[in-house]
Amino acid sequence: MSSLSTNSYKGTRDYYPSDKRKQNYIFGVWARTVRQFGYEEYGAPLLEPLEVYAAKSGQELVGEQTYRFTDRGDREVVIRPEMTPSISRMVAAKRQEMPYPARLFSIANFMRYERPQKGREREFWQLNADIFGVESILADAEIITLGSQIMKAFGATDEMYVVKINSRNLINAMMHDYLNLDPIQASLMVKLFDRKDKITHESFRDQAIEIFGSEQAKEGLAKLAQLVAAKGIETLPGEIAQHEAVDELRVLFSHLRSNRVMNAQFDITLMRGFDYYTGIVFEFFDTHPDNNRAMFGGGRYDGLVGLFGAEPISAVGMAPGLSMTEVFLETHGLMPELASTTEVYVAVLGENSIEGASQLAIRLRAEGVNAELDFTLRKIDKQIKTAVKKQIPYILFVGENELKQEKYNLKDTLSGTEESHSFERLVSRIKDRRHKHATTDELFDQL
Amino acid sequence: MSSLSTNSYKGTRDYYPSDKRKQNYIFGVWARTVRQFGYEEYGAPLLEPLEVYAAKSGQELVGEQTYRFTDRGDREVVIRPEMTPSISRMVAAKRQEMPYPARLFSIANFMRYERPQKGREREFWQLNADIFGVESILADAEIITLGSQIMKAFGATDEMYVVKINSRNLINAMMHDYLNLDPIQASLMVKLFDRKDKITHESFRDQAIEIFGSEQAKEGLAKLAQLVAAKGIETLPGEIAQHEAVDELRVLFSHLRSNRVMNAQFDITLMRGFDYYTGIVFEFFDTHPDNNRAMFGGGRYDGLVGLFGAEPISAVGMAPGLSMTEVFLETHGLMPELASTTEVYVAVLGENSIEGASQLAIRLRAEGVNAELDFTLRKIDKQIKTAVKKQIPYILFVGENELKQEKYNLKDTLSGTEESHSFERLVSRIKDRRHKHATTDELFDQL
Repeated sequence: MSSLSTNSYKGTRDYYPSDKRKQNYIFGVWARTVRQFGYEEYGAPLLEPLEVYAAKSGQELVGEQTYRFTDRGDREVVIRPEMTPSISRMVAAKRQEMPYPARLFSIANFMRYERPQKGREREFWQLNADIFGVESILADAEIITLGSQIMKAFGATDEMYVVKINSRNLINAMMHDYLNLDPIQASLMVKLFDRKDKITHESFRDQAIEIFGSEQAKEGLAKLAQLVAAKGIETLPGEIAQHEAVDELRVLFSHLRSNRVMNAQFDITLMRGFDYYTGIVFEFFDTHPDNNRAMFGGGRYDGLVGLFGAEPISAVGMAPGLSMTEVFLETHGLMPELASTTEVYVAVLGENSIEGASQLAIRLRAEGVNAELDFTLRKIDKQIKTAVKKQIPYILFVGENELKQEKYNLKDTLSGTEESHSFERLVSRIKDRRHKHATTDELFDQL
Repeated sequence: MSSLSTNSYKGTRDYYPSDKRKQNYIFGVWARTVRQFGYEEYGAPLLEPLEVYAAKSGQELVGEQTYRFTDRGDREVVIRPEMTPSISRMVAAKRQEMPYPARLFSIANFMRYERPQKGREREFWQLNADIFGVESILADAEIITLGSQIMKAFGATDEMYVVKINSRNLINAMMHDYLNLDPIQASLMVKLFDRKDKITHESFRDQAIEIFGSEQAKEGLAKLAQLVAAKGIETLPGEIAQHEAVDELRVLFSHLRSNRVMNAQFDITLMRGFDYYTGIVFEFFDTHPDNNRAMFGGGRYDGLVGLFGAEPISAVGMAPGLSMTEVFLETHGLMPELASTTEVYVAVLGENSIEGASQLAIRLRAEGVNAELDFTLRKIDKQIKTAVKKQIPYILFVGENELKQEKYNLKDTLSGTEESHSFERLVSRIKDRRHKHATTDELFDQL
């Protein structure tokens, strides 16, 4: 029989312990930050019926990117490509009993059939944080503040990223009232805006002309130029500047300032792909020249819960991703050094000491110390090498003498220093280190 | 348009915050316990190529229970139904660089197309803990000890469950040398043993006769009766009692006793479904009359890594599941009361106080307190009702007077008592509670 491949499925990653530590660090910061704002965790199924996405998630996602199949019971199902429809379904199911405002979050894996690239895999992990039941713009402000607070918790400064903000209501007014586009033209124009940063200026203009059609083109292009030139809500062309969505944006920016979000800016070209957004939309952009792109976004989607037969409920949410966050942290030098969660490696100096070393490990664990026992009886330098490779901070040497005298040599694998300690001193020594190392703490703080 | 169903996909669960807290409590105990033994976390992809399971996972699982489909690139893939093949693949891929003994764990979701029942869902969560690179029976003893330690960490006493242990080597000797069965007969007999507790004594005998065939039946049944009657390794019939696998079991039980595992027992009828086991196999059984069944198991599978073209590596592992654990804890009254991770609900007494309350919430969060702000301006009794429903331990009332005097009323939602505090006292009051409530701590300790 020919042997099986050791490769992971295309576009997915194997997380070995050193990679998983980074993942856990990011998950830990996410969970701690959203919990500070009172968000509570939920979990949703991996599979959903196809129609849950067909309604509002957008044609590209459903038609080209879903992992869909027919189960053994003939149901058309999809591996979830995003969380918003699932949590909307869950809220609709408990519409009556839920306490509002409902602040909810999850950290989960998703799949989309896309071309894998840096920061984008077919299986990916996201935080989803959503607030249900608040019509007021204070909810939009809170979600954006939460995103900003997560960035700060990772050590990011205001210069490292910007928050771009737009409004679906303003986009609609712009498309229909200002540019005089019919619904089909408008939807094409929205898609063109969405691609704006990825195509040349010429290509943008040519495609815009095509959408306007020859009769509308000249006037349309002039208006378009005015729109794109507007750098803030105060410089929008006259007719649009009067729209109530502009007032709403003004109030939002004021709340953001009082929440210490100083790097938010209006961006008329920001569209967001999903069809379900109904109000404010936003994206967090990395400003680093090596990684100048959108990291994550979100917005208001007041209509989604209503699709499940319940009365509509206001909703605002966002979804930062793991890989993008990892790229951001690496690019800005913000990823901390992360040691093993194992605190001490118990090396055994001979067969006669295995039982004694094993009992010592049991006592260490009873004191809350994470202790790994090497019962392979390999040469001591091999045991040391293993502990160093595993990035375990301490090695404890246990032989017959040590067991008799109840004094043990503790080696610091980073500094190389070695000290002899009683059991009690061992424990306090190892615990001291834990409290000094914030990043190890992070690992202890989360799953 | 007719509205979408709010039901979750058949055999899957929606975890609302109160359910998710239980899940997090169980995940937290799992992660903390295995980390105490030096196990490090990894993550594997959701999908694997079909052939990874076709090799060794057993016909029933692959043929009838997998969620398999063809992806958009024409690859035959499976939503992982178990973790062992994935982690074996990962170890094979890094065969050379890995430090051994490799102690690895993951907490992940899986899918199997089965009839949903209590404690068994189509999407389910498991801890997988495995040790690679140790031939010695000490590895088997450690994995079983780890399972036992997890039970103790949940508060289980020795009477609440037993650990049943058998050996694949002994099973093979029994089938081939003692019962004189050919490979096909042996495989049918193993499956029959596996079903033993689920069928009547008569049905067991009739099916055994069928496997033996008329010529072998009489002698076979007599030998079978002797085997099944053996309650310990010391009472096995003569020829089998001499087998080296019995010596190995004897050593294993001695290690387990010195590791304080007092409720382990030999069980000749224990088989374990997977084809990949090669040595010791075990299962943890609930002894409660209302839930008298296998909870989880594991064993040694020395051949699996070698299937991926690498040199074979010894491996022992186990996989407790979430739902079975939940049923066990509920049945034995061991599930703790779990409050919200949100510590204080900031109720706002009028529109003029929103900005001040918002700033107060920011200050609380900066002190590490999890504070949820209610900016709905609903009547105060409605705000209180929301906090109580969310199981948040404290409510803070913020109005114009409070902001002016910098004294705030803090209500304990459980006792109903209310006290007035300065900001500093508020913080210490709330934090005191956190340290007193172990179960809330558990939630803070993990993701």
